[in-house]
Amino acid sequence: MTVQIDNAGRQRHLLDLQTLPVDRLDALLRRAQAFASGAQAPQALAGVAVCTLFFEPSTRTRLSFQLAAQRLGAHILNFDASTSSATKGETDLDTFRNIQAMGVRGFVVRHKGDGAVAALAAEADAGTAVVNAGDGRSHHPTQGLLDMLTLRQAKGDDFSKLKVVIVGDLKHSRVARSDLHALRALGCGEIRVCGPQSLLPDDDTLQGCVVTHDFDAALDGVDALMMLRLQRERMTEGLVESLEDYHRDYGLTTQRLGRAKADAIVMHPGPMNRGVEITDAVADGAQSWVLRQVSNGVAVRMAALEAVLSAVE
Amino acid sequence: MTVQIDNAGRQRHLLDLQTLPVDRLDALLRRAQAFASGAQAPQALAGVAVCTLFFEPSTRTRLSFQLAAQRLGAHILNFDASTSSATKGETDLDTFRNIQAMGVRGFVVRHKGDGAVAALAAEADAGTAVVNAGDGRSHHPTQGLLDMLTLRQAKGDDFSKLKVVIVGDLKHSRVARSDLHALRALGCGEIRVCGPQSLLPDDDTLQGCVVTHDFDAALDGVDALMMLRLQRERMTEGLVESLEDYHRDYGLTTQRLGRAKADAIVMHPGPMNRGVEITDAVADGAQSWVLRQVSNGVAVRMAALEAVLSAVE
Amino acid sequence: MTVQIDNAGRQRHLLDLQTLPVDRLDALLRRAQAFASGAQAPQALAGVAVCTLFFEPSTRTRLSFQLAAQRLGAHILNFDASTSSATKGETDLDTFRNIQAMGVRGFVVRHKGDGAVAALAAEADAGTAVVNAGDGRSHHPTQGLLDMLTLRQAKGDDFSKLKVVIVGDLKHSRVARSDLHALRALGCGEIRVCGPQSLLPDDDTLQGCVVTHDFDAALDGVDALMMLRLQRERMTEGLVESLEDYHRDYGLTTQRLGRAKADAIVMHPGPMNRGVEITDAVADGAQSWVLRQVSNGVAVRMAALEAVLSAVE
Repeated sequence: MTVQIDNAGRQRHLLDLQTLPVDRLDALLRRAQAFASGAQAPQALAGVAVCTLFFEPSTRTRLSFQLAAQRLGAHILNFDASTSSATKGETDLDTFRNIQAMGVRGFVVRHKGDGAVAALAAEADAGTAVVNAGDGRSHHPTQGLLDMLTLRQAKGDDFSKLKVVIVGDLKHSRVARSDLHALRALGCGEIRVCGPQSLLPDDDTLQGCVVTHDFDAALDGVDALMMLRLQRERMTEGLVESLEDYHRDYGLTTQRLGRAKADAIVMHPGPMNRGVEITDAVADGAQSWVLRQVSNGVAVRMAALEAVLSAVE
Repeated sequence: MTVQIDNAGRQRHLLDLQTLPVDRLDALLRRAQAFASGAQAPQALAGVAVCTLFFEPSTRTRLSFQLAAQRLGAHILNFDASTSSATKGETDLDTFRNIQAMGVRGFVVRHKGDGAVAALAAEADAGTAVVNAGDGRSHHPTQGLLDMLTLRQAKGDDFSKLKVVIVGDLKHSRVARSDLHALRALGCGEIRVCGPQSLLPDDDTLQGCVVTHDFDAALDGVDALMMLRLQRERMTEGLVESLEDYHRDYGLTTQRLGRAKADAIVMHPGPMNRGVEITDAVADGAQSWVLRQVSNGVAVRMAALEAVLSAVE
Repeated sequence: MTVQIDNAGRQRHLLDLQTLPVDRLDALLRRAQAFASGAQAPQALAGVAVCTLFFEPSTRTRLSFQLAAQRLGAHILNFDASTSSATKGETDLDTFRNIQAMGVRGFVVRHKGDGAVAALAAEADAGTAVVNAGDGRSHHPTQGLLDMLTLRQAKGDDFSKLKVVIVGDLKHSRVARSDLHALRALGCGEIRVCGPQSLLPDDDTLQGCVVTHDFDAALDGVDALMMLRLQRERMTEGLVESLEDYHRDYGLTTQRLGRAKADAIVMHPGPMNRGVEITDAVADGAQSWVLRQVSNGVAVRMAALEAVLSAVE
């Protein structure tokens, strides 16, 4: 396992929330909250080159990291490694080492392979830091952090009384896995998960969670709802009958939202499939914190980049 | 209709020249001329994030805006929304709102749908400004402005004695429509339009213009020629017989240019189809102001970005 | 021939190493070494706009130039002219002139056509500088420079006693041609070239070189090995039988490397085809200077950009 915290207690990389000590998670959240509240550090990474190295494309996440890095004064570079013409058949590790040899010190890496980002981090030079922007179905630590920051802003720092439900395709979701790790670490009172059997993981991912296929029941009295995006490929894979069926069973409507607490918040990692997992009325309603999540994403990524890049050397 | 000037008299957005008060148009042109003459404002937008959000690709216009924003000290981001993988099926408005939530304050938006840019601007937060980089066949205000700036540089600020001819595919051209609005607003003495019937609009676009299909007649004694690009798809649509025919009837040659005033200037929004709407000799000749237009484009975009982004908040 | 050094003795462009006076080559190498050793010039190109204009894609080289330009304080723009939608059928020269008219002063140009970059440079305005980032099979001057810088770091500045071998597809390689020009200019003691007959040029490219098809013999007592990438298209063109055959005859293994001097260094311009022209053991071994080459690439490009852009105006 690649080390996130080195022997001197400095954060080397941000690879997952599963093995991140809770005091680190808390420190990142507090720093992110400061940025969200307007703290600035325009010279924190002055002259430092940061590369977004995406082996799987994601315009949105890349943009959020770029904004975060710019606000810290970093130089930004982008390497879209998802096209073969970019890598010309070289190994991922060679691509990584090459850019590192150019003098890039910070890497924001996304990869479709589970563990692939940590594998690259394991080969990084002493002065190089890696932030995982999503690997396979495993980890998406900055998404987990921004979700926790959003929860804190809405419900306070004490999660012990909270009831949170995660809804949808948890099986294929690194967002859900990172949220689960973070919710457990922060002592969330009750974690419910809800979705069709075909979209729920059958390993120990859901350990300690209340699992149900009944969406109405899952919503009863919850403080927060984390809706997941339904990838359309789940239909072609036969895991979901139809968008209509899915919406009927697991689509969040205003009526259903009424089962949650009156001040429950609705979250979604985006991009939303309006009319599938969520209706327009809920997505744009007073209880939606979806855009706040996006704003918090930049703050969290500033905290993450600052943590790992002021730690090295 | 989305407001460009707010109640306090500040320019909120730049969406079209049609509804822009003439004193604003003039103010933008004067500021652009200052930039063209070497004025600098390297800190005007320091720390402000500007995103080029193109739902229809255009490398050239994007580059021009990027240069303009960089010279004002802004942070630049690019979101190429013309590929479905970038938007993953989300609505244009969700894409816009997401990037806005990240803290981007300035948007440079291009869209193939008429009115689509103004529609996004209508949903913008109070602190967010939108510059229309072209929507459908409707508006391309910065192109209209740069054409006016070029005309002023060549012919002075008083347009009342000028005879200007616009030649080619006016029907599908937002450039032509923006030029027409601007020429009228600035009191151009005589506006002629010329092209095959199939490429001329049949609505009130050409109100007040002298319309002709005879290119030679249209050129007689004009001060300026605005040549339009002939999109090759007009052939497949059957609107134009062949490139050869088009060139014979509406291609600008040195000989034809002789019918215009001796000091007439030739303009083209680019990219040029050499040998179709314009010959090499004219494109590269002494009367060509094509590259000056390109230079003016950066100055105009600096003025536009400065106007809308120093106006907000 | 486009002039690289103007009448006042300033370096206008960097187009090739073939016609670059050796004192200039040496000056660039010495400045690059200073950058490689930590010299900084963060304001050298402050406010100067540099555009990477690639008519043939290359993410790696583009990234290296971008990093170099950023470290000198330049504004960076990218124009990927390898897709037709970007250029919309306009000529390369019009594309170049357009971006120049926007105020870009530095161009980093790659093109698949031999001489195409010099042709654009010949049309550049007085205040515009062009750096050739690779044209056809002809020139790749910054690669040649970075290879020389690497050789100097490993073997000292006096090349008169050195034996260097270049291995592989020299016929299609601008890297090899630039290396050959530089090695000759710097007085390399013995230049050997080795590859199958089908991949060796039959013109005067190899003048003064010891040519052999026997890889083992070619390695005897050499100080440095420059391995070339085998493009997979050479198979489909029938120039190489199979990857296996090529590896058997010209693949660098640890055993073969033993024929070179004990302190011989191994170089490769990347990206490497591991298992084809080079084995993992050699690529990652103690004698590999491949990543140092990449690092030196940024230093060399800083020196090149600084030289041509502080020379103009």
